[in-house]
Amino acid sequence: MDDHVTLDHGSGGGKTARLINELILPLIDQGKDGSENALCDGAVLDIPRGDEEGKLVFTTDSFVVDPLFFPGGDIGKLSVCGTVNDLAVMGARPLYLSLSFIIEEGLPLEDLRRIAGSVGETASRAGIRIVTGDTKVVERGRGDGIYINTSGIGVTALDLKPENIVPGDCVIVSGTVGDHGSAVMLSRNPELGIMSDGIGAQLLSDCAPVHREALSLAEGLGKDLRVMRDPTRGGLATTLNEFVEGRKDAGIEIIEKDIPISETVNGICDILGLDPLYCACEGRIVLVTAKEAAGKALEILKKCPGGQNAAIIGHVTEDLPGALIVRTPLGTGRIAAKLSGSQLPRIC
Amino acid sequence: MDDHVTLDHGSGGGKTARLINELILPLIDQGKDGSENALCDGAVLDIPRGDEEGKLVFTTDSFVVDPLFFPGGDIGKLSVCGTVNDLAVMGARPLYLSLSFIIEEGLPLEDLRRIAGSVGETASRAGIRIVTGDTKVVERGRGDGIYINTSGIGVTALDLKPENIVPGDCVIVSGTVGDHGSAVMLSRNPELGIMSDGIGAQLLSDCAPVHREALSLAEGLGKDLRVMRDPTRGGLATTLNEFVEGRKDAGIEIIEKDIPISETVNGICDILGLDPLYCACEGRIVLVTAKEAAGKALEILKKCPGGQNAAIIGHVTEDLPGALIVRTPLGTGRIAAKLSGSQLPRIC
Repeated sequence: MDDHVTLDHGSGGGKTARLINELILPLIDQGKDGSENALCDGAVLDIPRGDEEGKLVFTTDSFVVDPLFFPGGDIGKLSVCGTVNDLAVMGARPLYLSLSFIIEEGLPLEDLRRIAGSVGETASRAGIRIVTGDTKVVERGRGDGIYINTSGIGVTALDLKPENIVPGDCVIVSGTVGDHGSAVMLSRNPELGIMSDGIGAQLLSDCAPVHREALSLAEGLGKDLRVMRDPTRGGLATTLNEFVEGRKDAGIEIIEKDIPISETVNGICDILGLDPLYCACEGRIVLVTAKEAAGKALEILKKCPGGQNAAIIGHVTEDLPGALIVRTPLGTGRIAAKLSGSQLPRIC
Repeated sequence: MDDHVTLDHGSGGGKTARLINELILPLIDQGKDGSENALCDGAVLDIPRGDEEGKLVFTTDSFVVDPLFFPGGDIGKLSVCGTVNDLAVMGARPLYLSLSFIIEEGLPLEDLRRIAGSVGETASRAGIRIVTGDTKVVERGRGDGIYINTSGIGVTALDLKPENIVPGDCVIVSGTVGDHGSAVMLSRNPELGIMSDGIGAQLLSDCAPVHREALSLAEGLGKDLRVMRDPTRGGLATTLNEFVEGRKDAGIEIIEKDIPISETVNGICDILGLDPLYCACEGRIVLVTAKEAAGKALEILKKCPGGQNAAIIGHVTEDLPGALIVRTPLGTGRIAAKLSGSQLPRIC
């Protein structure tokens, strides 16, 4: 086998078949009886039969993160977490995943092997079955190593949505924010020399599946859980804006000092000129609960591995409807709008 | 709004929101009551409740066709047809489609509008609902205008697969082969000067949804329908090889003169040095039926719009198990292996 991906690997012929047989097919879960044929044009799957109120959740994401490998993860891990988490925050049990590669000619096969390995490992950890896939190859200079699309199917009986939010509700995050965004940005700037020997050495992306936390919250809180989201592109501030955007009766106020941000992320954001509130997370949940359920939500999160930094960071208010207000340690408030420029391109 | 896509359009902030609001959201079918929120991380959908034997079909494809616009279609139309057809040939009713764009910085917004328009029009024609989406932007020189991933969900009660094939069965195609592949290759070679004024002027991609034909065949033939496939990458010859690959008891023999190929495609393949049997189709079905059902299959296909060229092109034989034999007009046979090189990169 060659050392690098060539255009022949994407033409649909024998080389494509060999690439798929070696690297992709081992990732595809063909079902217990092997009757589901991954080489067909699609996967044939059992229809999830939940209770009468069960709904299908369907989501898609393309991943173009640069660089492909970053502290704490790589594009393979990210592309499984991203879609698993989109399902999870809808309150859905993740069931089936599709996996589509757009590979740039010249990608070292060794890199592809590592990425495929991460995909498999993360899917297995998240308990989602990769059931169908596709591989394309584009010429050198028409891509950037590899882009990955995953689409996911899950089932839920919940109806979590921003419209459920009412004034008085509490806002909670499941851990420190901004780790993924700042880790990726840092690894794009090796010339800063803080990667390996400075504060950067401690920084890892938070990239991880959050389905366990999300399902525990959904089960534990019932109707008191209003909405969950994973604050990826645009970070915490953009997600919270989306929760109340256009609302005439509700805004969100968060208390700056209560937002869990690691010292490392704070330091690196200072150096890079970033605001951690706009830095992507890839293994965190931001959620809104009824006021009386916030303590229980925190308790559930703190019991989950890595949940020690979960915190109540604010509440839903009638004061400035439709807006996100950040209350500073001095007691003043500033409006934090949605991200509008390109603070962090290609972060996921 | 700008004239071209910029990196800011992909950062997850305000510009992304405006792009999505103008171009993507109108494509998303939010359900009759509007309760399905396209801006959530995923779509919440009714679980298809078929009969007890119903199965979910799930498929994915990324489209990297070059050029983006070709005679008879564009990447938008192609990306809907490709996935709809993958569902259709599994005997599935197409239900839900996801739509993910990876856009290169600098793509004219006018091109994006045309492509989005094609996506919407084709989905509507195919009766499939686009329910969720994603948009990423990569820097100039890291993509090629636009790449599109679509994933599709359908339901089927059938179990069509190559293993169903037995010696004596008939092989049928639903129309002329090689139109898509040769149209795309021709539009990549405008210097040949045969595009607009020569034979090329008559050449159009066959790109079209085939769900109606596929469902009519499935309903009309029952168990006599063994397997269907849309012969895309690698063309008819590669698909037929896949039908019998590894079989110890069955090969396929096709009669060269019975294969419907337009004179234009034959002429252009001669000029470009291509073999039409390996040229992709994007609106054709190749199917295997029980011998006694072949006439009925042909009748069904000929009744469908554009089905006048449907033809029985060969049969399943015990002669050369695992192989595809092409019988020439001289009566000799040649083995046609799977495509192994890159005859046609980036054809879909």
